[in-house]
Order: sequence, then structure tokens, then C-alpha cells
Amino acid sequence: MIDVVALDGDDTLWHSENQFVMTQDKFKALLEGHADPDELDARLMAHERENLQVFGYGVKGFTLSMIETAIEVTDGRIDTGVIQDIITGAKEMLQHPVELLSGVADTVAALVKDHRVMIITKGDLFHQESKVARSGLADDMWQVEIVAEKDEPTYQRIFDRYGIDPASFVMVGNSVKSDILPVLALGARAVHIEYELTWEMELADADKSHAGYAELDTIRDLPRLIATM
Amino acid sequence: MIDVVALDGDDTLWHSENQFVMTQDKFKALLEGHADPDELDARLMAHERENLQVFGYGVKGFTLSMIETAIEVTDGRIDTGVIQDIITGAKEMLQHPVELLSGVADTVAALVKDHRVMIITKGDLFHQESKVARSGLADDMWQVEIVAEKDEPTYQRIFDRYGIDPASFVMVGNSVKSDILPVLALGARAVHIEYELTWEMELADADKSHAGYAELDTIRDLPRLIATM
Repeated sequence: MIDVVALDGDDTLWHSENQFVMTQDKFKALLEGHADPDELDARLMAHERENLQVFGYGVKGFTLSMIETAIEVTDGRIDTGVIQDIITGAKEMLQHPVELLSGVADTVAALVKDHRVMIITKGDLFHQESKVARSGLADDMWQVEIVAEKDEPTYQRIFDRYGIDPASFVMVGNSVKSDILPVLALGARAVHIEYELTWEMELADADKSHAGYAELDTIRDLPRLIATM
Repeated sequence: MIDVVALDGDDTLWHSENQFVMTQDKFKALLEGHADPDELDARLMAHERENLQVFGYGVKGFTLSMIETAIEVTDGRIDTGVIQDIITGAKEMLQHPVELLSGVADTVAALVKDHRVMIITKGDLFHQESKVARSGLADDMWQVEIVAEKDEPTYQRIFDRYGIDPASFVMVGNSVKSDILPVLALGARAVHIEYELTWEMELADADKSHAGYAELDTIRDLPRLIATM
């Protein structure tokens, strides 16, 4: 029997990756003529990957990586107006309205009747708190945990903090790497709901034969699935 | 009787503001000839103040504010090499060794014998987690709470989460605005230990006659003070 249902935030409850993609498209348009778009994507990803160890996840680190990439690919000749445009784009991302995925509001309303429902979301504390607050879901949540990384120690710390029995816990999210693998490794259940876009650094393969693993096409089917667990 | 002792992180347990000041001094040196140093400080503070609502606290937002200021004060003529230098400086700040304030290690070791000791620190989740981990204090902590803002609702949420009685709780920190005022307002005690530098946006006046207020010159005197509470 499932007691605690934990929901990922970005791209599970609300849209996020589409805004990064849109911002990156604008970035490529700003740098048109300076670098081939594919090459630009590759250079940006290289900066993001390297900077992740220092900056962590989130829009501000992404923005600093875009600025470094813009300076690099233009050999420093980028107009500073473009750099200001990149920063202005970051502010727009951070203030962008929170758009729930289809079915989220109804599903959460159904789940809270029989379960303790929490959000476990990764990334920038300030931005994630702001998104939770603007999602309209905060009042229904038993707990909200914003974490810097979603790995086994992080989930274990959450289990310990709230006295959660992994056997009665299910994590629901779009990232196999962050929402599924570490949770299954701790003996809990995980439900994968793929989002239309997946950031390259979140790609991983799930063992679909694992007893604790399930996948859904839409969050609307979650209450029915959890009732069978 | 005090049960829970909560310690602020930046400029209470470890040095922080001196690194911001040092970075800002380098920033002024980089922009020498473009703007009067005092004017530059004022313009940077204006950007920081405005951006705080969007970026939150921390090095990455500070860095984006420095870049905006550099572009603004030079009417866009700033060399992009300087912008890269600003970003490189940010990475150095984020990876700077954690330097405990004098007396911290001994004091924490003494406090944990008789109290549940926790860190309540504000700012960037990723950077603060990294500092807690590198401080060598993590294993002694009952809990670590990294928060986006230190106001009454935040402290109330922490009291609720752990079932803390405000009458048995004391907060210790260098910021009157963040560590003292909201805690006193909730009926708990607060100990102010001033740091050698205070960021302009943390300045506030304490009501030194408040029954729950105390101040110390050094954290070394904390165990003795708490024993009298």
C-alpha cells in the first residue's frame, strides 16, 4: 500500500524544458553568422557540463554558460548588447508564468484524498520555491523538498527526515536518471512519465523489468495505477 | 532551557562577505577608468537590489548583476575579456575553500554535547550545500536547513517541520535582519554576533532591550551564554 506519493516538479507538474529550448533557440538566433547552430549547441553543452560542478542546476548557471559560449565562439567579438539580451532572457525565464501540464491539477486533487503527497524537485532554490508558490499546488502538499541533486543519498535523507518506509513510497517523474534509478535502488517504487523533451544530461536507461518500475503516458492515469500497488 | 541551537552559516560559522568585498574590489579594478569607484558601487548595488527579486541571493545572481553594471557604466564598450574575467571570478568564489571563523570548531563541539545543533543558512542551495559539506561541521549537525529567505514564515515552517518549541530555541547569527528580528517576533531567542563586514542589504536595527535578545563579541562565549538561558 502506498502512503507517500512524491512528484517531481519540472516537466512532471509544470513545463520547464520547453523554456530552456526556446531560450537556446533565441541564443542561436542572436549568434547567427558567428557559429553553425549545431556547433553552437555542442559548445554550449560542453560549457554547461563543465560548469555544472560549480554552478549547479538552474537558469542562472545556464545563463552564465551561454555568456561564456558567446564570448568563446566569437573570439570575444560578441556585441555586449547581445550579452545584455541573454541576461534579459534569463530574467524572463525566471519570471515566466508556471504552466501546469495537462491533468496535473485534477490528479493532485484526487491523490491527496488518500495519500500524503509531496514535491521533490531539483534545481535553484529561489526559482523552484517561486514556481511551487505560483503553481497553485502548495496548499495540497504534505511537504516540499527542493534539493541540489537527486541521487540515492538525497532520497535516503528524505526518507530519514520524515520516517518514510521505502516500501510505501512512490516517486513520479520524467527523468529516469533523477526520479527513477536512485529510488528503485533504495527499494521504493517509481513511475516514469516521459516529457516531450528531455535535457541531454538527464538521459538514462531504465530497467523496465524492475518490479518497482512503471510507466505512464499521462499523469491522469496515476491514481488508478497507485491504487493497484 | 534551550533544546535547539540554530547557527547561521555565512559570516557566523565561515567567512563569506569578505570574499564578496574582495570580488567587488577586483571588479572595480577591472573597470578602472570607466567609472568612479563610489559611483560603480552605487550602480552595482542598484542592480543587485532590483535583481534580488528575480535571482535571489548568491554568487551567480551577484555575477549577473556585475555584468549588467559593467555593460551599463561603459555604455556597452566594456571588453568581453573583462566579462569573462568576472565569470571566472565567480567560479573562484564558488570554489573558494571554506574558512571557519575563529573558535567555531571548538564551540560546535561543546554545544553538541548538550543540545540539538542545526545550521539555518540562506542563499544558493548548491553553493551552501557545498560549503556545509566542506566545513567539516556536517556530521555534528542534527539538521541543515538551506532556505531562500530568512523571514518569519520560514522560521515558522522550520518549527512546524521539526516540532520545535520556540521557547526552547535560540538562533545565532550575524544578521539582525535575517537571524534576529524574525526569530524574536516568533517568541524565540536570538544571539547577535557581529561580523567585521555587513552587506548593505542585511543592515537593520535590533531592539537590544528585547528579553529574548543577546549579543556576543565572539562565538566562543556562546556555550556559557546558552547555559544561563
